[in-house]
Amino acid sequence: MDLHGSFHVYDTTLRDGAQQEGLNLSVADKLSIARQLDGLGVGYIEGGWPGSNPKDTEFFRRASQELELTHAKLAAFGATRRAGVRAADDPLVAALRDSGAGVVTLVAKSHDRHVELALRTTLEENLAMVRDTVTHLREEGQTVFLDAEHFFDGYRANRAYALEVLRTAAEAGAEVVALCDTNGGMLPDWVSDVVLDVIESTGARVGIHAHNDSGCAVANSLAAVAAGASHVQGCINGYGERTGNADLVTVVANLELKLDRSVLPQGLLKEATRIAHAVAEVTNVPPASRQPYVGTSAFAHKAGLHASAIKVDPDLYQHLDPLVVGNDMRLLVSDMAGRASIELKGKELGYDLSEDRELVTRVTDRVKQMEQGGYTFEAADASFELLLAEEVEGARPSYFDVESWRVITETRTDGEAVSEATVKLTAAGVRYVVTGEGNGPVNALDAALREAIGQAFPEVAKFELIDYKVRILDQGHGTDAITRVLIETSDGESSWVTVGVGANVIEASWGALVDGLTFGLRRQHR
Amino acid sequence: MDLHGSFHVYDTTLRDGAQQEGLNLSVADKLSIARQLDGLGVGYIEGGWPGSNPKDTEFFRRASQELELTHAKLAAFGATRRAGVRAADDPLVAALRDSGAGVVTLVAKSHDRHVELALRTTLEENLAMVRDTVTHLREEGQTVFLDAEHFFDGYRANRAYALEVLRTAAEAGAEVVALCDTNGGMLPDWVSDVVLDVIESTGARVGIHAHNDSGCAVANSLAAVAAGASHVQGCINGYGERTGNADLVTVVANLELKLDRSVLPQGLLKEATRIAHAVAEVTNVPPASRQPYVGTSAFAHKAGLHASAIKVDPDLYQHLDPLVVGNDMRLLVSDMAGRASIELKGKELGYDLSEDRELVTRVTDRVKQMEQGGYTFEAADASFELLLAEEVEGARPSYFDVESWRVITETRTDGEAVSEATVKLTAAGVRYVVTGEGNGPVNALDAALREAIGQAFPEVAKFELIDYKVRILDQGHGTDAITRVLIETSDGESSWVTVGVGANVIEASWGALVDGLTFGLRRQHR
Repeated sequence: MDLHGSFHVYDTTLRDGAQQEGLNLSVADKLSIARQLDGLGVGYIEGGWPGSNPKDTEFFRRASQELELTHAKLAAFGATRRAGVRAADDPLVAALRDSGAGVVTLVAKSHDRHVELALRTTLEENLAMVRDTVTHLREEGQTVFLDAEHFFDGYRANRAYALEVLRTAAEAGAEVVALCDTNGGMLPDWVSDVVLDVIESTGARVGIHAHNDSGCAVANSLAAVAAGASHVQGCINGYGERTGNADLVTVVANLELKLDRSVLPQGLLKEATRIAHAVAEVTNVPPASRQPYVGTSAFAHKAGLHASAIKVDPDLYQHLDPLVVGNDMRLLVSDMAGRASIELKGKELGYDLSEDRELVTRVTDRVKQMEQGGYTFEAADASFELLLAEEVEGARPSYFDVESWRVITETRTDGEAVSEATVKLTAAGVRYVVTGEGNGPVNALDAALREAIGQAFPEVAKFELIDYKVRILDQGHGTDAITRVLIETSDGESSWVTVGVGANVIEASWGALVDGLTFGLRRQHR
Repeated sequence: MDLHGSFHVYDTTLRDGAQQEGLNLSVADKLSIARQLDGLGVGYIEGGWPGSNPKDTEFFRRASQELELTHAKLAAFGATRRAGVRAADDPLVAALRDSGAGVVTLVAKSHDRHVELALRTTLEENLAMVRDTVTHLREEGQTVFLDAEHFFDGYRANRAYALEVLRTAAEAGAEVVALCDTNGGMLPDWVSDVVLDVIESTGARVGIHAHNDSGCAVANSLAAVAAGASHVQGCINGYGERTGNADLVTVVANLELKLDRSVLPQGLLKEATRIAHAVAEVTNVPPASRQPYVGTSAFAHKAGLHASAIKVDPDLYQHLDPLVVGNDMRLLVSDMAGRASIELKGKELGYDLSEDRELVTRVTDRVKQMEQGGYTFEAADASFELLLAEEVEGARPSYFDVESWRVITETRTDGEAVSEATVKLTAAGVRYVVTGEGNGPVNALDAALREAIGQAFPEVAKFELIDYKVRILDQGHGTDAITRVLIETSDGESSWVTVGVGANVIEASWGALVDGLTFGLRRQHR
């Protein structure tokens, strides 16, 4: 059943997802995530609450200039007008109207006690606030969705009033009334009953906004859809306040793959794994390996017991083919699994390893040992290629010999800190001693290293360090822990990622920097 | 409805949970987890597969000697006899019989293709294997549960055969037939339909064993119970292969708190948070902060939107009282927080700000501005308290004046990197110049700083840096980006988190270190 276009897949990562503890998104982060979500083909991207804080205001300003979306429409989130003022006179309503998004998702109270205690106004005035704000925004050409906050609790407390809020919004021109399980305590059967009643009682188009406090956010979303909802809100990777919002990818994958409802543009679901991981890189919240569909463990099998049957028919051991969500089956523990993927990876990089079993064993063992020590090669293709080249060619590719390095970070008299690095190395037969400065120790080391090497290999001038990530492994040991650094280097045309590991963060960074330059030079000189 | 005693809460953490990628349990770990599970009041603890590997055999040997359980019974897991041998002659069946557990959970194939491809025997022989093994174990005085592997897929492929396997087991004396969604792809409505049919067709007592591959493990378990299942299997913290098993605590909490079925001994559910975290300490898998009910974020509130009404009635903003599962409400300070949450947070820290509107505005503005610049206070309570104290008292709490600092990281002759820091400061009227060493720059700075201050304030000797987190903000600018550092310091009794921000990672770390020591000293000197 192709529902794309008629069914709303509505992402609220940039607004409700950003409420997650420990998740802080800059404006640049938000723009980058919006592009990823558009690549997944969601219908709506809720960008934030313009006017409520400088960051969200800035996001909408930049989005209207920089953000080109293919599939998604941008939505601005905000509240109904304040009590006792005209909608047109409320500056926060004006910020919604003028955000440039074209779609406004208005949050309204639908629980009588919340109206009285949180809004401190009357039930009648709250209805007027809904009516006026929707009417005003519709007159100004906006599409309006209503988020009925605390709807399920409100429905229990005062069904007639909760329904009246929805009816008021729908009559004023709201296209969708989304029922929010704001506290996240619902169970699927309850959601189903309420959605059925709302549709029968109001005739409105219904949406669902679920949180995971009872561990049922996905099932609650599906129950709402089964009962007639045609608009589902959620967040990629299930981000969100407390226990998180419904994981939008899981909901969509269940709808498309299990319930035969195509809600994304055709062919985009297979981007899900890549996009979920890319967004996790931006949020810097480590991706959950056990996440349904897209987790790195989601299709990982302990080999052994059933290995022979898996070979005959993998479908007997997985609920669906992982490729449909862009994930992959992995076999764990078994040495065969490791070897096979090393061989495959080698092939990808232009090395045919199929004839040399001993070499494959050597590389597999070394990778396992290094990963045990904190390395990761999943993201660091360039470091893996250097390792492979070392084993195949007998020596690690090398264009310079480092004698020593040192970096000093100290306070200036004005209190700010500056870094200065000295690198001693030999390149193309000449010894260089170079000092570089930077606003941080790694920056300074990078500057010194590239200046020294640049005298022998001028092409490094166009190399640029474009991303730098630090992860502390083995948390709980404070600064004693092992540090892993990933560095992305670009030559203006393409980029590559290298990894370094060490008890000392500077040492780990140095390893990744040296690999990054070596890999770049190797490309030029092959 | 008090169902304790008649309803089975069956934990399989030590067997199916241990299949999780990266989870490795020693025998001592397993014994320790079993004691925790018993403290939660589960009815059954599946300890492993005796005879299949030395570790599980050893576990049952030691359990029978050392493990005193108050609430739970131990269960041994294993397969039906091999094809073509007598049950009494199969050494793996003998290991089950002799494990000392008293309860045996037999896994049997119920999917016709699995019988043919994985067992490589006939459908008839598989039925005989089920019948003989159950009969033999019952004759030997064991209680027997049947785990019908791949039941739901088998039911779809060949309903009659799948049901025949259950009937055979029940007739031979199995007390429960647990329907396993081994591949984890089911959805709640499907589970419900199958359970209803099984009960009607076989009359057997039904159990459910769900995995989370479609994100519905909890909802699937609840759907089975609603349809008549009275035995639920799962793992604490949702451990398990691929995406994990059903999270047993979430399932039980939903049953007890939302569906009025008391399935644990009275009063034990409030141990859930403590026990879930204690088990995570043993498994060394970091607890998921967003886990329903027991996660540290499960009752954490962030949005300014809600904070004003939380003051009036917390029940409006949480699906239930966190104390019933032993968790607690927390308020977070963030850039989305308005005045109300600042006021509430102040109160939590012992400052009554309700009378001073101007002060609240000043703190709110400052928090927003600093968060714009990369700070985060939601995790860094101690830095927030210092900021608050500064605004309330007119000056930032201070116990020493830093003149300057410097840290050098360099390669030793053996190639390894070492760090050395020099700090110059005045404390209690005396100037100190101290040099400290460390395996990283922050480690070295911490050593120097604490040695210098320690001469004036000996109590810092018991302070310890226990966690260190780095996050690069504004990715895409390489090492030019802003760095945020979070540091957790302990005095042996409690711990506190501070934050530092800077273009230079060392500078950011320094800020967090200074705040960490200042906060600790302030506590002692108040």
